[in-house]
Amino acid sequence: MLRTHTCGELNLKNTGEKVTLCGWVQKSRDLGGMTFIDIRDRYGIIQLVFNMDIDSALCEEARKLGREFVITVTGKVTERSNKNLKIPTGEVEIIVDKIKTLNKSKIPPFTIEDNTDGGEELRMKYRYLDLRRNPVRKNLELRHRMATETRNYLDSKKFIEIETPYLIKSTPEGARDFVVPSRMNKGEFYALPQSPQTFKQLLMVAGYDRYYQIVKCFRDEDLRADRQPEFTQIDCEMSFITQDDILNTFEGLAKHLFKKIKNITIDEFPRMSYSEAMKYYGSDKPDIRFEMKFVELNDIAKGKGFKVFDDAELIVGICAKACGNYSRKQLDKLTDFVRKPQIGAKGLVYIKLNDDGSLKSSIDKFFNQHELNKFIKQFNAKQGDLLLILAGEKLKTQKALCELRLEMGNRLDLRDKNKFSPLWITDFPLLEWDDEAQRFFAMHHPFTSPKKEDIALLETNPGEARANAYDMVINGVEIGGGSIRIHNKGLQEQMFGVLGFTKEESQAQFGFLMNAFEYGAPPHGGIALGFDRLVALFGGSDSIRDYIAFPKNNSGRDVMIDSPSKISKEQLKELY
Amino acid sequence: MLRTHTCGELNLKNTGEKVTLCGWVQKSRDLGGMTFIDIRDRYGIIQLVFNMDIDSALCEEARKLGREFVITVTGKVTERSNKNLKIPTGEVEIIVDKIKTLNKSKIPPFTIEDNTDGGEELRMKYRYLDLRRNPVRKNLELRHRMATETRNYLDSKKFIEIETPYLIKSTPEGARDFVVPSRMNKGEFYALPQSPQTFKQLLMVAGYDRYYQIVKCFRDEDLRADRQPEFTQIDCEMSFITQDDILNTFEGLAKHLFKKIKNITIDEFPRMSYSEAMKYYGSDKPDIRFEMKFVELNDIAKGKGFKVFDDAELIVGICAKACGNYSRKQLDKLTDFVRKPQIGAKGLVYIKLNDDGSLKSSIDKFFNQHELNKFIKQFNAKQGDLLLILAGEKLKTQKALCELRLEMGNRLDLRDKNKFSPLWITDFPLLEWDDEAQRFFAMHHPFTSPKKEDIALLETNPGEARANAYDMVINGVEIGGGSIRIHNKGLQEQMFGVLGFTKEESQAQFGFLMNAFEYGAPPHGGIALGFDRLVALFGGSDSIRDYIAFPKNNSGRDVMIDSPSKISKEQLKELY
Repeated sequence: MLRTHTCGELNLKNTGEKVTLCGWVQKSRDLGGMTFIDIRDRYGIIQLVFNMDIDSALCEEARKLGREFVITVTGKVTERSNKNLKIPTGEVEIIVDKIKTLNKSKIPPFTIEDNTDGGEELRMKYRYLDLRRNPVRKNLELRHRMATETRNYLDSKKFIEIETPYLIKSTPEGARDFVVPSRMNKGEFYALPQSPQTFKQLLMVAGYDRYYQIVKCFRDEDLRADRQPEFTQIDCEMSFITQDDILNTFEGLAKHLFKKIKNITIDEFPRMSYSEAMKYYGSDKPDIRFEMKFVELNDIAKGKGFKVFDDAELIVGICAKACGNYSRKQLDKLTDFVRKPQIGAKGLVYIKLNDDGSLKSSIDKFFNQHELNKFIKQFNAKQGDLLLILAGEKLKTQKALCELRLEMGNRLDLRDKNKFSPLWITDFPLLEWDDEAQRFFAMHHPFTSPKKEDIALLETNPGEARANAYDMVINGVEIGGGSIRIHNKGLQEQMFGVLGFTKEESQAQFGFLMNAFEYGAPPHGGIALGFDRLVALFGGSDSIRDYIAFPKNNSGRDVMIDSPSKISKEQLKELY
Repeated sequence: MLRTHTCGELNLKNTGEKVTLCGWVQKSRDLGGMTFIDIRDRYGIIQLVFNMDIDSALCEEARKLGREFVITVTGKVTERSNKNLKIPTGEVEIIVDKIKTLNKSKIPPFTIEDNTDGGEELRMKYRYLDLRRNPVRKNLELRHRMATETRNYLDSKKFIEIETPYLIKSTPEGARDFVVPSRMNKGEFYALPQSPQTFKQLLMVAGYDRYYQIVKCFRDEDLRADRQPEFTQIDCEMSFITQDDILNTFEGLAKHLFKKIKNITIDEFPRMSYSEAMKYYGSDKPDIRFEMKFVELNDIAKGKGFKVFDDAELIVGICAKACGNYSRKQLDKLTDFVRKPQIGAKGLVYIKLNDDGSLKSSIDKFFNQHELNKFIKQFNAKQGDLLLILAGEKLKTQKALCELRLEMGNRLDLRDKNKFSPLWITDFPLLEWDDEAQRFFAMHHPFTSPKKEDIALLETNPGEARANAYDMVINGVEIGGGSIRIHNKGLQEQMFGVLGFTKEESQAQFGFLMNAFEYGAPPHGGIALGFDRLVALFGGSDSIRDYIAFPKNNSGRDVMIDSPSKISKEQLKELY
């Protein structure tokens, strides 16, 4: 090794030792007769001292070192007179007697500090410098620790990690595939997997019982802020289980991670049906760090001559505690908020419960004190509270109120990043109707089983059938989801039929899986957790990009290596 | 869970317990009043008993179960009268009182036994059934254990696992890339990585110090028997190290795996230069489980009027101990062997040292007893030994003799699958001349550094320059290789120049890396080990395919899912 120690491990116990260190120049200070240089490596930072009186040549040499030069120094560990107790090595310094520049550095395009002056694009172009910054390094270290603990937990539960192929077959169902032309099979293409779904099911047919993989998946989608064309999943499947077994096993994984990584003990996850979640939170990924549940008002709000309510499919509101003192201006801002196109409400009704017991509402014209008191009773509201009510088409209104609820949560500081409130959402609908395509799509995927009691609905009213599907939601973020799968050829064929596949199409695309079901396929189910998102959640950030070493931008480009790029004519010719 | 226990965990301690098991019908025997069924899961196999006298309906039901039906049974664990001590559960059986078929099975196309009657192609088509066989399952379990122990070792050495991207940039150097058309960037392509080489170097520039990843890599090559278009590497890189540090660290990894997985203690790996390996074994991946080193004979063999020797660049042989009794027929077979086109020798010279002290050779005409004795002395041969000698062009003759040595090793049972003889090959040539392209290619890759003392040769005689490159070889198999990298922009540019790149070309392809070298790039180096091959070696097989869950055949096809395949016109249109 070119060093005897790392920059992070030295302290008073090492006093008097002769050490050799390697690292980058973080900063340098000339104080007349003395020069101090901080050098940094992955493990920490430590102060070097050069004394003009003792070795002026060496000191001069040190003064020539620029920021981010990578150097090696030899010297003696000495107690500092002026201690810095903020860093682990801050009680000692190195009195250097030898110095060597391993490589120079140009002046970096942004400062390598916790808070840098570099903009996103510049930092991405020089990602190798951005990655030197402490917060970014800590993110990747967190990711590594979480991967390790995930494996520890799943190994302890007898899961076996099996690698599935990356060059697979393109399927028309679901999101768009990235395809890979095959040179050896002209005119034919592989696809990169959107998930190892069919392979993990085949592993269950093969008797592997408990499978997992931390695996890259690919989706050629138009990228939104927080999506990447390649992303990482914790992908799992189990045989001979019920839905409860899966929920318990992966609730166990999440608890294990919270305990090992953040030393937080999490209680049993609440389990909420999809329909409850929509009714009380207007979302299938409710943030339950705070209450503020929806209260439906159709029974008391209709028939009083207020057209907005009378025409509405749903009248629903939330109670914002202790916001009865909101000013006209504040209320106008909330109204503006719900009217934003991405929220889509037409207006906002409020009822203020003043501290003096009086009421003030935006619907005083239509509702008298007695009638308003019915609202207050329905909300179980108290003096000083504020009721916010939306009305309109059911789904739209639920979604808009969901956004308003989250906004109020933010305003009232109820969404603490250090608090974690996970839950399971269950009993999702099996299918979603697509108006444009005029057909059903699988809400989860076509391999998800319908609830036993709803199988008959596939023939009569498929839209009403519920699935054995579940999502893990933490703090309003969907961390992952899964389902109990179909393991019976007939039911799988019926499912493809409902999705508009002909027998020939389903056989051509998924024949291998349906044939496999004919050779003793066991009952099985599984889950896939978004690893990037889970790490971001643990790290306290909304952006998964901060937790990926080399992310792509919103156009799917890696601006550092400049990819994608043109390829040579010879390469193109070989392919088609 | 649909079971209380697995089929592999029950023994006499469980006697009397009521258990529920799930598994596949392995076989079924009707013995008049009794029916015995063996059921199997991932964890083992156990015998079920049905008694006609006690419950004839249940017994009849059991008799209807076919091979590979997947069932669940409830019953009582009982001591067997007729014990089978070959299996862990063989002292007990289950007296069944409830049985349920979870799924039926068609008759499988081949038997699910350790030795199956299914041919390779059939087994690949029904890989999910092939994977049920014990030997295949054990291979994948071995793979999982080896991955886990690899991570344990590297974690303990402070390596951090970092995921690098799969959608990267195509480069013309090295093997052929698989490319991925980008829909969002028309006319442009990603490439799938042949290795994360440049990314791991950038991680060193970024100060990550020790990186690893167990990662899929891709090469669009014409497939030979033991190649796959996608394969798995243990990919590592370290900063602030010498070559010795890397060899010691990864020798440590191999020793750790041998100890943990096979309970074998391995001594220090010998280190042999490339030129030594060629001189004594005619190969850069010598199998040193047995000696039989090459002995060069130019000094004593030339000038006796034997044209074959006189015209030869190299005369070289091996001594096969105790083979002096080889018959004419056996010697003819060896001659046929070396004359095979893939070996390419013109003929074989032998000298037999008979047990009675007399000599018999195929060159008696040209060499008298005294002269032949010089050969014997050079070989340090003993009575009863056989000398086998080839002559011709140096490299060709070395390679042919290498094959003959391995063949003799096989014949003499010197290549024991349970013996492991690893070594390091070092000091590889930096460059290889390619006659067809009329240029040099990097023997390892263009990022490998030349030896310091050979840098000047880059200008004068590049073909003679040696590299800081090394391979790990075990039992004649190249398990992996690596190098100390160039970390200096100037030297990297010079290297690209030697390889025939213009400045513009090298900047366009690898500018991002060379620019990174200008910001304090530390000295670094690394290694990549072929994980598929390493597992196959530990498993005692020559075929990596046996250790991959879903391998591709020699045309790069997955015959089970039938991939690659055609894609829809809409998909094609979106791409170009």
